[in-house]
Amino acid sequence: MTAEIAAGVHERLTGYRDRFDSLFADYFDTVARQQFPRSVLVPETLELVRDMSLRGGKRLRVALLYEAARLVTADAVAGLEEAALSIELLQTHGLIHDDIIDDSPLRRGAPSVYYAYRERFPDRPQTALGLAVLAGDLAAFLSVQVLLTAPVSDGLRQAMTAVQVAAGADTVLGQVLDLERDFGPVPDRKVLDIVSEYKSARYSVLAPLQLGLIAAGEDAAAHHRELARYATLVGVSGQLRDDYLDLFADSGTVGKPAGSDLHEGRRSYAVCAVLAATAGREREVVEAALADPGCPAETVERVQDIARRHGVDERLRADMRRVAEEAAGVAAGWRPRWREEAVEFFEQLPLWGAQRTL
Amino acid sequence: MTAEIAAGVHERLTGYRDRFDSLFADYFDTVARQQFPRSVLVPETLELVRDMSLRGGKRLRVALLYEAARLVTADAVAGLEEAALSIELLQTHGLIHDDIIDDSPLRRGAPSVYYAYRERFPDRPQTALGLAVLAGDLAAFLSVQVLLTAPVSDGLRQAMTAVQVAAGADTVLGQVLDLERDFGPVPDRKVLDIVSEYKSARYSVLAPLQLGLIAAGEDAAAHHRELARYATLVGVSGQLRDDYLDLFADSGTVGKPAGSDLHEGRRSYAVCAVLAATAGREREVVEAALADPGCPAETVERVQDIARRHGVDERLRADMRRVAEEAAGVAAGWRPRWREEAVEFFEQLPLWGAQRTL
Repeated sequence: MTAEIAAGVHERLTGYRDRFDSLFADYFDTVARQQFPRSVLVPETLELVRDMSLRGGKRLRVALLYEAARLVTADAVAGLEEAALSIELLQTHGLIHDDIIDDSPLRRGAPSVYYAYRERFPDRPQTALGLAVLAGDLAAFLSVQVLLTAPVSDGLRQAMTAVQVAAGADTVLGQVLDLERDFGPVPDRKVLDIVSEYKSARYSVLAPLQLGLIAAGEDAAAHHRELARYATLVGVSGQLRDDYLDLFADSGTVGKPAGSDLHEGRRSYAVCAVLAATAGREREVVEAALADPGCPAETVERVQDIARRHGVDERLRADMRRVAEEAAGVAAGWRPRWREEAVEFFEQLPLWGAQRTL
Repeated sequence: MTAEIAAGVHERLTGYRDRFDSLFADYFDTVARQQFPRSVLVPETLELVRDMSLRGGKRLRVALLYEAARLVTADAVAGLEEAALSIELLQTHGLIHDDIIDDSPLRRGAPSVYYAYRERFPDRPQTALGLAVLAGDLAAFLSVQVLLTAPVSDGLRQAMTAVQVAAGADTVLGQVLDLERDFGPVPDRKVLDIVSEYKSARYSVLAPLQLGLIAAGEDAAAHHRELARYATLVGVSGQLRDDYLDLFADSGTVGKPAGSDLHEGRRSYAVCAVLAATAGREREVVEAALADPGCPAETVERVQDIARRHGVDERLRADMRRVAEEAAGVAAGWRPRWREEAVEFFEQLPLWGAQRTL
């Protein structure tokens, strides 16, 4: 990719994000117009859902959606705005409940919804928990509701709604698999890949792709197998990168101290790779770190040293590149059926992701 | 209503329930066919959602749905089975999350999903909480997903889905209002009625009515105001009854000790009526009982005595009858637009409910 093309893609991504963020704010203005006489908590709940939603980052899912429509046409496509709102509301739903599940105080650089309520009701932890569960539920229903307003034919709207609801259900099962991963027998690579697929690839990559194609009039179901294959590879490669960075990056790169997966006993790709590469005394060190939520920075450094001594860091980087290249290969196969500039976007996307570890 | 007609209605209700319970079991067999290699928790989660769902009682929502279609036609109506599954899955979603919000060990005569997971993972309360949140989320997505398979036109399916998703969102707001009711200023009657409307009438009465009418080809939106009025009156009257029984019934009638609303600090219709009727020393007794989760049976009896001395029990019963009669009057106005035998069902329904306190 030349610098010129890269600059063009970057501009397009920034454009999607800026337009979407403004759309999202307008959407919440409409939602907030519902009146509940004398209620303080309903407006507060809507405000917390709004704040969490608007603290989004790169809005890569929204870019995937718009680029998926561009696979088919360069013209404006109806229904993408509602699909983008639906995608990001489903994400908000997942984040709010995820922060209950993980008991996380922070999300997107500010208090999680759960902890915002705990701060609001310091003497009523049960009320705070209840409100956080409800705020997440609300985002889920709004996510479907907004999609039902898409100005497209009944048939397309139905197909798009089915995509999002399936993504929602699959993500829940992925979260169950993710919790299960951390106890019982150490998971093998196939299990970790299934977790990545269900927990993130389906709603973050596959659903935006399907929604963009359907809105643009393409029969997404006819290409299901390769879309799903692409989505899973991008999801696995992204998860490999996150897990690699969690163990090996210095805090300057990822904005948090290394080793949070170790602290929280998470059997990430990186943690499982270290477990698989070690035995005896070394493995005991890793297992002790996993079992100790308060393990000090020196222990994390010891695990890093052990991992590097066994070449785990290099193997993970190589693995990530291999999976990203495989994903790029799937997208390359979309020529000449789909439009060149959008195919190129999907081809480059996994490679950019993998590069971010270097 | 003659005994003959009443027997006919009873037979119809039992028929709906039996057919539905068998349909619901078949539905979960299909859901369970999804394969997750080596996962133990996904099948367990599906099983817990199934068990909670199949422990349903009278399935009155399903009866409302079928009778709503019978307002229009005596013929079989496509889409009612999927609508019935959707209604009861939405109910399962609400019950699972409600039992987290209220920290309830029991539901429908067996452990709540939350407590089933806590028993399964005695050393991992956070995992148990997370799985219960996820099980409830799953039921919500399944509730929409099954409705999208209704064998009706795209337009009807869209209208039915919009009804259910709005009911889901409204119920969440009703739950927020319900939590808010129990602290801050003592709520007045209008606030209590709004809680009843949002928390239960919309998904339990209004949505089944709308779904049945839409499936049968009626323009439910054209009759929105009177359907919503009927639903709210039925919801308020039902809540008045539940709250009355909670304070005044002996345990033989409701299957649990009297006064659970007092124990849990809930400002029910009955509790608010006692607060409004008392002052000075008597009011202090009621407020002390509300603030004490462990208040003994004698305290509950003292509150009952105080309430009876002020005629609160009689006023609640009269109020309940008045609201039920108003609901019946709304349904009576559906003659001759809709079919007599179904109109009669909707006319009698609130009166039966109010009678159950006598």
